Amino acid sequence: MSCAARARRLDESAEIIVLERGAHVSFANCGLPYFVGGEITDPRALLVQTPASLRAALALDVRPGNEVISVDADAHTVTVRSADGVEQIAYDALVLSPGASAFVPPIPGVDSPRVRTLRTVEDALALRVKVTAGARRAVVLGAGFIGIEAAEALAAQGLDVSVVELAPQPLPPVEPELAWLVSEELRALGIDLRVGVAATSIHHGPDADTVVLADGTELRADLIVMSVGVRPDTKIFEEAGVACERGAMIVDTHGRTNVPDVWAVGDATLSIDAVTGTRRPVALAGPANRAGRLVADDIIRPETAREIPQPVGTAIVRVGSLTAALTGANRMALDGAGIGCRTLHLHANQHAGYFPGASQIHLVVHIDPGTGRLLGAQAVGTEGVDKRIDVLATAIRAGMSVDELIDLDLAYSPPYGQAKDAVNLTGMVGENVLNGTLKLWYAEDLDDVLDDALILDVRRHDEWVTGHVPGALHIPHTELRGRIDEVREQAAGRPVRVMCASGVRSAIAHRVVTQAGMDSASLSGGILTLRATLGGRASDVLDTESVLQGA
Amino acid sequence: MSCAARARRLDESAEIIVLERGAHVSFANCGLPYFVGGEITDPRALLVQTPASLRAALALDVRPGNEVISVDADAHTVTVRSADGVEQIAYDALVLSPGASAFVPPIPGVDSPRVRTLRTVEDALALRVKVTAGARRAVVLGAGFIGIEAAEALAAQGLDVSVVELAPQPLPPVEPELAWLVSEELRALGIDLRVGVAATSIHHGPDADTVVLADGTELRADLIVMSVGVRPDTKIFEEAGVACERGAMIVDTHGRTNVPDVWAVGDATLSIDAVTGTRRPVALAGPANRAGRLVADDIIRPETAREIPQPVGTAIVRVGSLTAALTGANRMALDGAGIGCRTLHLHANQHAGYFPGASQIHLVVHIDPGTGRLLGAQAVGTEGVDKRIDVLATAIRAGMSVDELIDLDLAYSPPYGQAKDAVNLTGMVGENVLNGTLKLWYAEDLDDVLDDALILDVRRHDEWVTGHVPGALHIPHTELRGRIDEVREQAAGRPVRVMCASGVRSAIAHRVVTQAGMDSASLSGGILTLRATLGGRASDVLDTESVLQGA
Repeated sequence: MSCAARARRLDESAEIIVLERGAHVSFANCGLPYFVGGEITDPRALLVQTPASLRAALALDVRPGNEVISVDADAHTVTVRSADGVEQIAYDALVLSPGASAFVPPIPGVDSPRVRTLRTVEDALALRVKVTAGARRAVVLGAGFIGIEAAEALAAQGLDVSVVELAPQPLPPVEPELAWLVSEELRALGIDLRVGVAATSIHHGPDADTVVLADGTELRADLIVMSVGVRPDTKIFEEAGVACERGAMIVDTHGRTNVPDVWAVGDATLSIDAVTGTRRPVALAGPANRAGRLVADDIIRPETAREIPQPVGTAIVRVGSLTAALTGANRMALDGAGIGCRTLHLHANQHAGYFPGASQIHLVVHIDPGTGRLLGAQAVGTEGVDKRIDVLATAIRAGMSVDELIDLDLAYSPPYGQAKDAVNLTGMVGENVLNGTLKLWYAEDLDDVLDDALILDVRRHDEWVTGHVPGALHIPHTELRGRIDEVREQAAGRPVRVMCASGVRSAIAHRVVTQAGMDSASLSGGILTLRATLGGRASDVLDTESVLQGA
Repeated sequence: MSCAARARRLDESAEIIVLERGAHVSFANCGLPYFVGGEITDPRALLVQTPASLRAALALDVRPGNEVISVDADAHTVTVRSADGVEQIAYDALVLSPGASAFVPPIPGVDSPRVRTLRTVEDALALRVKVTAGARRAVVLGAGFIGIEAAEALAAQGLDVSVVELAPQPLPPVEPELAWLVSEELRALGIDLRVGVAATSIHHGPDADTVVLADGTELRADLIVMSVGVRPDTKIFEEAGVACERGAMIVDTHGRTNVPDVWAVGDATLSIDAVTGTRRPVALAGPANRAGRLVADDIIRPETAREIPQPVGTAIVRVGSLTAALTGANRMALDGAGIGCRTLHLHANQHAGYFPGASQIHLVVHIDPGTGRLLGAQAVGTEGVDKRIDVLATAIRAGMSVDELIDLDLAYSPPYGQAKDAVNLTGMVGENVLNGTLKLWYAEDLDDVLDDALILDVRRHDEWVTGHVPGALHIPHTELRGRIDEVREQAAGRPVRVMCASGVRSAIAHRVVTQAGMDSASLSGGILTLRATLGGRASDVLDTESVLQGA
């Protein structure tokens, strides 16, 4: 629709036909879970435009219920099937925007009528009917963005919800040390989260189905939401000669396929990732809308049409009281592309600490270890996450290096930020890492560090007793200068690995220890990141002084 | 304190003395109004650090109550007066960070004990005492950021508050078409806003003072807050030979003054504006903190110290349920620097319109008419203003042109944004303006347009009747293609100036009229911006069909 609307604005004389297989055009895909969950109450709100409104405003000929069943690229025709029969339509320019369909894995019993996907208005209406008809237990297969939104929506409607995910965590693109916060939030919402396990079959029962997992668990379900991923819906276009790679259409920088006068946009096309250079489909609304608009430019006035930019890949999801968001590449994408990175962890308040309601944004930022170029960023928190990720997405698009974040003049007043915003602080930490002022160690290396180094914990006593690494030396950072000889003695030539709660005090202490001539490093993200990295193991690994804990 | 703390982190061996005239260091300046207003309840929350905490953490020798009374640059000494007497302290490096003092204009009676400024913890405590002691009526002189925050704080405590501002609007740096929204919000908060008028004298009474305005108005006041601006506090440093311009210290890109081994930072220094190149003091926390940090680098390791970046000048204020924020240059700064600009007005939802709680962000963006470079942006709204201004501040810092905003991958999910975010939409409008697809006309030119052109209003009938420009032709945009001959007839060779509510439908209509061969333009920001530009005159200028208005 972005393409059709733009084409009309550029050219009043064009005949523009939009063919849609489904019953609706321009509907609010991303709003469907919120309709299921009852936050959006009127289903008409999901229909952003209708064929009538599009005809009136833009003189578009929009035809829902019209499925393209073949393309004859030589004859420049498409064959369309509708309730009225089959017809052929000639085109000068053809734009393919078939999108992706929910992938339904071939497990036994998946054909149960209790299984639904959540991609269309019809899906949402059907789930809503089941919910209002008294469904009690739901199983969501897949803990990606849509799976999580569906699970929360169903839990909000009072259902007992289990979420089953093959990966070892929810939201697989999110780094594990942030995903743990999402896991905890899901549990706080009363959702039964089961990760690292596959669903192997679905047994149909008279009153309910049973989902059987690989570990033998059986989960009863009145309804099952299938959200394990999507597949580009390109079969007939590939048959018509459009070059594809693993089912996704290959396009050039103007959205042109290999077939003359045929363009393609959206979830069914390949994009080149702006950070990694990897070629993959990107199922995001923003890039799809943008590509549609630019394809219209290329059709109507090719001489001035801009190229479609490579997507940075920014995404966001609300989970209970949390927001999780990411932009650019994650560790796995960087590893896959053979790009090295350093990672920064911060836990910075969203606004001035002295202003009521301050809360932490947990931030992970990947940078190029040589140049400091920003490669990716992720954040989880209750407030202000979207703002920081949007600023970082803008910085990544601009090709900024991490130290340039120091220089961003972000809006500050106590209700909105800090004089040194989380993004500025990221820049400062990054600059210190790049020029060697700060050396970091990482929670994932804890076992090696325990073997080879002295861990120096510089938190206050009341923090130390709530959980600390076994064998660590405890000296509050305010006493460190006076007790530096104790550190030297206990280290006995070993490296010193400093830690605190979030990494701020340990960075100061690291400078003290370094300048006292010892090999030192500061734990990236402090025990907050260490706990999240350990996840469920934290209580086993960390010592507590329980006698003092209640104090 | 940023400078001192950074210096310590870089060098354990340095002797670092911090001299402060007042009773507190590192206090929460920006939090003071919120303490007066009762949102921050504990005055200790305003003291971010204390001399004791700074000694413990950073081995800093912080001396409040120590006023520098002279500098001998040749001898490398400062003379300091404290309760203990007068002493001389030698320095290797001297950093001047005196800040700015509240300016108190020389009007008769300004020496009343009922007059306070709001710059220090003592000021805030004194105002709080007056409030809790039962003050009933307050007059705030000056409607800048601090004046507005003070007025709202006092109103929140139940006082009757008048605000007096010499400029014709509150928040003088904000463009008038946005400032009007702030005026309306202040009135909704019950604040008596008086703009375009000076206070000429203050009469002391036994029970209350009376503030007399230039128009003869007399305002009784139990307390008077003076917030008409600040002045750099540099007298003794200028006497010591530090070169100044209108009282502000001149520094190079490393913060060095003309005097050897003397640096200066903060509100009392001149900066070069990143957009206009103008030299002026910038009284903002972010740039001051950053400069302090970079001066420490230049003192301790000058060979690798980065230059202090030119400030973009981003600011934000909460006003009732609204947020007003700005970044980069405003019209007046651009005019003053002789920089031409085009202005874009948008009223875009902060998140998906179908998601509950959608509200508009009113956005004004200035661009270079030739290159499209972003020059400045301002926004007012109830939600999401800070995010958009921070993204635009980042884009300005990166030197982006407006069309590059289209390509920003901002985080989208219904609770957080739109697939085409307000920032992306700004890019689309800007690109259309740059390449001639869209031609704009402006509310400020209404009188000329009324004389020379046909105004075509393409809103729905129910919108039209609530207020329209006299003599306008009304054709809803959905009927325009069928009634284009009416437009041609009524225009009778005159240009057609299209308008709608916000500028979206009129942009589509503009394309229809243009392609029908007429001279056409679309009203930037629609009647929303027109009404805000007219301000109090709107009801006089616009026609309403009152018989239908209640329908």
